Amino acid sequence: MKILVLHGPNLNLLGRREPGVYGTTNMEEINRQLHKLAAELNVQIECFQSNHEGILIDKLHQAIDVYDAAVFNPGAFTHYSIALRDAVAAVDLPVIEVHLSNIHAREDFRTKSVMAPVAAGQISGLGKHSYLLGLQAAVALVNERGLKDER
Amino acid sequence: MKILVLHGPNLNLLGRREPGVYGTTNMEEINRQLHKLAAELNVQIECFQSNHEGILIDKLHQAIDVYDAAVFNPGAFTHYSIALRDAVAAVDLPVIEVHLSNIHAREDFRTKSVMAPVAAGQISGLGKHSYLLGLQAAVALVNERGLKDER
Amino acid sequence: MKILVLHGPNLNLLGRREPGVYGTTNMEEINRQLHKLAAELNVQIECFQSNHEGILIDKLHQAIDVYDAAVFNPGAFTHYSIALRDAVAAVDLPVIEVHLSNIHAREDFRTKSVMAPVAAGQISGLGKHSYLLGLQAAVALVNERGLKDER
Amino acid sequence: MKILVLHGPNLNLLGRREPGVYGTTNMEEINRQLHKLAAELNVQIECFQSNHEGILIDKLHQAIDVYDAAVFNPGAFTHYSIALRDAVAAVDLPVIEVHLSNIHAREDFRTKSVMAPVAAGQISGLGKHSYLLGLQAAVALVNERGLKDER
Amino acid sequence: MKILVLHGPNLNLLGRREPGVYGTTNMEEINRQLHKLAAELNVQIECFQSNHEGILIDKLHQAIDVYDAAVFNPGAFTHYSIALRDAVAAVDLPVIEVHLSNIHAREDFRTKSVMAPVAAGQISGLGKHSYLLGLQAAVALVNERGLKDER
Amino acid sequence: MKILVLHGPNLNLLGRREPGVYGTTNMEEINRQLHKLAAELNVQIECFQSNHEGILIDKLHQAIDVYDAAVFNPGAFTHYSIALRDAVAAVDLPVIEVHLSNIHAREDFRTKSVMAPVAAGQISGLGKHSYLLGLQAAVALVNERGLKDER
Amino acid sequence: MKILVLHGPNLNLLGRREPGVYGTTNMEEINRQLHKLAAELNVQIECFQSNHEGILIDKLHQAIDVYDAAVFNPGAFTHYSIALRDAVAAVDLPVIEVHLSNIHAREDFRTKSVMAPVAAGQISGLGKHSYLLGLQAAVALVNERGLKDER
Amino acid sequence: MKILVLHGPNLNLLGRREPGVYGTTNMEEINRQLHKLAAELNVQIECFQSNHEGILIDKLHQAIDVYDAAVFNPGAFTHYSIALRDAVAAVDLPVIEVHLSNIHAREDFRTKSVMAPVAAGQISGLGKHSYLLGLQAAVALVNERGLKDER
Amino acid sequence: MKILVLHGPNLNLLGRREPGVYGTTNMEEINRQLHKLAAELNVQIECFQSNHEGILIDKLHQAIDVYDAAVFNPGAFTHYSIALRDAVAAVDLPVIEVHLSNIHAREDFRTKSVMAPVAAGQISGLGKHSYLLGLQAAVALVNERGLKDER
Amino acid sequence: MKILVLHGPNLNLLGRREPGVYGTTNMEEINRQLHKLAAELNVQIECFQSNHEGILIDKLHQAIDVYDAAVFNPGAFTHYSIALRDAVAAVDLPVIEVHLSNIHAREDFRTKSVMAPVAAGQISGLGKHSYLLGLQAAVALVNERGLKDER
Amino acid sequence: MKILVLHGPNLNLLGRREPGVYGTTNMEEINRQLHKLAAELNVQIECFQSNHEGILIDKLHQAIDVYDAAVFNPGAFTHYSIALRDAVAAVDLPVIEVHLSNIHAREDFRTKSVMAPVAAGQISGLGKHSYLLGLQAAVALVNERGLKDER
Amino acid sequence: MKILVLHGPNLNLLGRREPGVYGTTNMEEINRQLHKLAAELNVQIECFQSNHEGILIDKLHQAIDVYDAAVFNPGAFTHYSIALRDAVAAVDLPVIEVHLSNIHAREDFRTKSVMAPVAAGQISGLGKHSYLLGLQAAVALVNERGLKDER
Repeated sequence: MKILVLHGPNLNLLGRREPGVYGTTNMEEINRQLHKLAAELNVQIECFQSNHEGILIDKLHQAIDVYDAAVFNPGAFTHYSIALRDAVAAVDLPVIEVHLSNIHAREDFRTKSVMAPVAAGQISGLGKHSYLLGLQAAVALVNERGLKDER
Repeated sequence: MKILVLHGPNLNLLGRREPGVYGTTNMEEINRQLHKLAAELNVQIECFQSNHEGILIDKLHQAIDVYDAAVFNPGAFTHYSIALRDAVAAVDLPVIEVHLSNIHAREDFRTKSVMAPVAAGQISGLGKHSYLLGLQAAVALVNERGLKDER
Repeated sequence: MKILVLHGPNLNLLGRREPGVYGTTNMEEINRQLHKLAAELNVQIECFQSNHEGILIDKLHQAIDVYDAAVFNPGAFTHYSIALRDAVAAVDLPVIEVHLSNIHAREDFRTKSVMAPVAAGQISGLGKHSYLLGLQAAVALVNERGLKDER
Repeated sequence: MKILVLHGPNLNLLGRREPGVYGTTNMEEINRQLHKLAAELNVQIECFQSNHEGILIDKLHQAIDVYDAAVFNPGAFTHYSIALRDAVAAVDLPVIEVHLSNIHAREDFRTKSVMAPVAAGQISGLGKHSYLLGLQAAVALVNERGLKDER
Repeated sequence: MKILVLHGPNLNLLGRREPGVYGTTNMEEINRQLHKLAAELNVQIECFQSNHEGILIDKLHQAIDVYDAAVFNPGAFTHYSIALRDAVAAVDLPVIEVHLSNIHAREDFRTKSVMAPVAAGQISGLGKHSYLLGLQAAVALVNERGLKDER
Repeated sequence: MKILVLHGPNLNLLGRREPGVYGTTNMEEINRQLHKLAAELNVQIECFQSNHEGILIDKLHQAIDVYDAAVFNPGAFTHYSIALRDAVAAVDLPVIEVHLSNIHAREDFRTKSVMAPVAAGQISGLGKHSYLLGLQAAVALVNERGLKDER
Repeated sequence: MKILVLHGPNLNLLGRREPGVYGTTNMEEINRQLHKLAAELNVQIECFQSNHEGILIDKLHQAIDVYDAAVFNPGAFTHYSIALRDAVAAVDLPVIEVHLSNIHAREDFRTKSVMAPVAAGQISGLGKHSYLLGLQAAVALVNERGLKDER
Repeated sequence: MKILVLHGPNLNLLGRREPGVYGTTNMEEINRQLHKLAAELNVQIECFQSNHEGILIDKLHQAIDVYDAAVFNPGAFTHYSIALRDAVAAVDLPVIEVHLSNIHAREDFRTKSVMAPVAAGQISGLGKHSYLLGLQAAVALVNERGLKDER
Repeated sequence: MKILVLHGPNLNLLGRREPGVYGTTNMEEINRQLHKLAAELNVQIECFQSNHEGILIDKLHQAIDVYDAAVFNPGAFTHYSIALRDAVAAVDLPVIEVHLSNIHAREDFRTKSVMAPVAAGQISGLGKHSYLLGLQAAVALVNERGLKDER
Repeated sequence: MKILVLHGPNLNLLGRREPGVYGTTNMEEINRQLHKLAAELNVQIECFQSNHEGILIDKLHQAIDVYDAAVFNPGAFTHYSIALRDAVAAVDLPVIEVHLSNIHAREDFRTKSVMAPVAAGQISGLGKHSYLLGLQAAVALVNERGLKDER
Repeated sequence: MKILVLHGPNLNLLGRREPGVYGTTNMEEINRQLHKLAAELNVQIECFQSNHEGILIDKLHQAIDVYDAAVFNPGAFTHYSIALRDAVAAVDLPVIEVHLSNIHAREDFRTKSVMAPVAAGQISGLGKHSYLLGLQAAVALVNERGLKDER
Repeated sequence: MKILVLHGPNLNLLGRREPGVYGTTNMEEINRQLHKLAAELNVQIECFQSNHEGILIDKLHQAIDVYDAAVFNPGAFTHYSIALRDAVAAVDLPVIEVHLSNIHAREDFRTKSVMAPVAAGQISGLGKHSYLLGLQAAVALVNERGLKDER
């Protein structure tokens, strides 16, 4: 099983960007813990970050027939990138939307996710655990799908 | 460590209520899997369901000084029970809000959670996994808190 | 055939509560006329009132496999109790929503029914006749269902 | 007692128009059942349909001093024809607004009735029964008015 | 003269719940000061708290013909419980709505009171003084009513 | 100079329709006073009423090259008939919009006129005087236009 | 009969201020024509202008028991000065609200008049004729009131 | 193949009505070009205009079993005539909605089409080409339907 | 201790202005009762009224270092005078906002107070008692502040 | 004559992406048919697709002085990319906005096009015909412009 | 060249009013620095403050033919004084709107300026520099106007 | 001191794009004047333009530890690019938001800046002066910061 982990805009600055909101753990550390968990779960993951909406769309398109699911933190694109939303809908993989901070407890414009209606599920507010639980969720959903397909 | 698992209104009908939306697993089965996971994580849990807002508030109040965290599926109360929200804020425990279905992909009125701004985090759309991941999240947050307190 | 008649909050005060809006007939008199009509229609009814949202939800749950339909005046819960709405949707019976006063001719917040989208139909503004016609409607719908099932 | 039954726009197509929404019974059959019920109730009825707002207004005006009440399905005019609403208010007869489908469970713009605040009551979602119960309601209201006038 | 003092949901936690917002005085202390003031004003009071909307409605109903007025802090129910609002309107007593915190200076959803249009008046933001002044107001209004009745 | 006076829907019932809102003077009396004033002002008028939006549009179209201005009470069409608005804009005559009642002091939906942005001016709330002053205004505007054309 | 004519803020600049919107006639010329008309109608008028909301309120208060009616162009205060609105409501005189330009055909915020619901009527868009017709309307309303008082 | 071309209100004035918005080509010229194109495409067309909503509805009803598709410029009815919308939905023909002007670049209220959700497609802003392309689209859609039916 | 009592616009007409809404007690009588209560409470008060927003702002500015608190009925300014709100915030005194009528039970625009978020508290709907309780509240708050300062 | 055909984000997946919404024809096939039509119309076209907003803006800029018009399906950018809108406005070419699906019949957020107010026209809902008719429209508009320029 | 500098309500308290928001520099110091800069730029300035809307309007009116431009901090009037806005529009001078604090980063109601659409430009959030840069902008705009006039 | 000057989308077309709105000065000329002013102020600047949101985000990220402040005209991204907003917030430099045109006097959607709440200040409507004053503001703010750091 192969899972794509996607980080959206500004997440490359994690750890030094607004630490009061996003904590002091940086993206590399999160990726390291994700790889560790992936090994335990016996799945392969690739971690990828971009500040470019178009590159994230391209990356999602390339995931078709390569990955079984995705864990995706769309960052600020969460709130307006309908193009990314359409890409998520188009690739027909279970995509778990994750957020470090509790987007429902912040500015009004952050409580709305244009991604959520086409995601398999959403995990927010749990810091690095949002990613780690997201990876577990992705693996669980792919396994359930597999069971259905076998039947 | 003791974790309270709270089920809100109509969840007692799970499995036979709108299976297209909520799946065919019933609440007892979810509770059974939660107890199994709790045993693996070496924590104690209590599972409790009510259709009464007031009883859920009373239960949350009683959790003070007894439980270390809560996993809470407020069901329909998610969208309007400010009294329950205030109870969550009042008890000062990490509360993980969980939903079986993806509330962000349903009717407009279900995309709004009055609970979320005072919850530690929210997990939705992952069926029974929302609960199981919620329990893991609760344990992780309590452990992190403990680490901070020790320092 | 068995029909449940449910009265929501404050309807126990009918006849003495804001008679300019709700008339001077009390709930017991309405129940008496409903029983008389039920006898004529050769159906059994139970009339039940509560000011507690949770008790009304429990009552609806208990109706499964016992009643064939319900006539329900949700009172003020009409406008905000999504938990009751979900209960109506969950029990999978034809539920006729009835209102004594014309809710569409009163305060703005009363023109919105969260119940209506999951009810079989709505009758409002006709005083006690809302209940009596509601009972007839319930019987008619159950009969039509039966005809379909026989085919 | 004389009751006017008014059918608004597109109801002449009933039975062949969007049967999934409006059923397969046509307008003539509904009129036939209404006449049968009227005979049982010992009242006279006239059934009239038009796709023209102006003709419906003219018809309502002519009802003054001729009819004792009206059963009115304004069809799509329900949602915007303030001119028809003013006609209903002007003729000073009890007018029962009826709808075949449950307008509160359809598109947002159909949940709003500009007619309802000046109607005596509203019955919706019960198919042909909306009309039949509407006729009963009209007769009941006229009888109650008569009792008051006698006093 | 008998005055009912009603405390809504979560007020039993007063003093330990969000002290930054609600202060450190607990409900028992407020009740004690209310009884002291009542003695000075030569009126009888009963203080009652519940987290259950239905119980508060029942209590208000029982106040008819027993109490002359009520001082009511509806807590979070202020913002959505139309059922409680209808109970306040139904009991036909002067009800003084009181709030410890300044609800107009907090979250948007707290600035709206569904109770206020049917209350005699509203006092907010003055901590325990909201209750004490509320009791004085209730006594004054009852006295004024009495004067009118005597005339 | 020739002025068209147009009365919209339900104005034929004036005098017997909701006299509390619209007064007891009927349309014929208003037309009589308009003809008297027209004679004094030495202008010709035609008065026309219809409950049909289409007939009013046709009438406005026919006014081109025949009338110099119009005094128009669009009745309920004021609030939604964009087709009539477009007709007013298309005929390129000064059209004075008049209303018997003060539309800005009634229901919310009556405070909005879709006609007003293309009318020369609006007079409302002055009963029959709205028409009489409207006729004077129409004459004054035509005279001013004439003066400009002569220059 | 005495009529007060009130001009609100910036009307002292009339004739040189935005002539494309407000025309080239200045306030003094309008006042002159009003005095001429007043003489013809055999009434006394006083014309008064201020840019100060407070002075306009004071002036309205002083009109009680002195003037029989007022013609009032509130200028920009039309759209937000609730204090002036309350003054209009308080003085209990017929007040005719007049506007030079068609406020319903300009910016959105100008289409709303907070004054209109308490004015006797509104005349807008007719340039200086708005004032002259407003004076006629005021005289007509006072005469009608007088007729009623005599009866 | 037979195609109905429907022109809504005020389009009879085309060429002389607001030429800055709608151009100087009149309706007869557009009809002539449509007939020429129809001949080239080897289809029959009928062109029909009315200012009456009811007549347009009747015309659409008559199209059932007679025409294969319709090209419809609903004019101002686009924005509010739900009755026409229901007629379009009821007749079950592909209806191409066309507009001479770019309705999305004009007043806010013109950007909303109540017709569009039940039309096959919408073409706007291309002057007479909107009609000509609309006719081509209608023919193409009927041909595609035919291909499917043959299979 | 010195307390400033401020009356906003139109309150000088109290007793003769809309007595159905504001009662028949005039401002002088309220001031008299306030002085009587002040004497009992052993505090000094000054009462001041103006219809001018600017004068009220100047008066508030002058209160700095002179008064310990203020009781303020901003009248209609309550709903839009952000300048007054900023003055209240700037002077850094406890300001009790009071209203004679229940502003939450009147027109929609009166339910919003721009003053309330910077006031210490709000008392409304209790007639003259709003002022008298407001004075008591002001004294209580100043005393509590004093206790804190001493500590 | 040279026409640029621009495809926005996710259109590269056409044919395999949500075929229920977008059909099974892929982008290459549409391009092929466009080239065929271009040859018939004797114009040159270039077809270009990108998932990157910035690349589409750059491409539009480069069209100045190279292309005579553009046919543009902005995909999801339709609904929020004001930067693309400004590019369309800046390049001063007739741009025909096309959509495969009927955007007015889908989710609310898709009914709004930020592009439309600066496009020459919009064609939606006609599948591949939207493109083909768009190309014809572009050619027609350029020819009309040319005729005007020659004059 | 003569420039008017206008300070709106509460700015006289600058330095002691909410220093966390507005800083500790007082108005006199800002005026001193403005005069110093004016001397360097070789222009004359007058600085004027008032808490009275009417006085600011009068002052702007008097600026006609006296000043070449204005730098205006309307304070709280920014958000609602349409009368001041009309004065700015009426005087036909370049007016630079300045704000000490970043009004776009504060309460929602402060992000809206009714002044801005008629101002030449807006500078906000830069403390005293907002004024100093505003003065430079005013001088630059007047110079550019002069250059145009000379041509 | 080093200042980054960022130009957003479409600004490369300045001078030839919609000159009525944006003037005829091109970006190179503005950059030249900025360099001249920078030399006078003894600071270094880099000017950079991109139509790609992602490239602008990358550029802002690279500014950390290199530049002391930024002058940023986000062009159309102003109104929706929350990703750019987060980048501005993340880099923790004073960023002056500048606009050539008065965005508050244009289309509704341009009056909202998602950037402004995290910018140090905003300057709009002053053409090239917006940039030049923005550079001065940036230098002033950096100097003030420096003074604070030294203390």
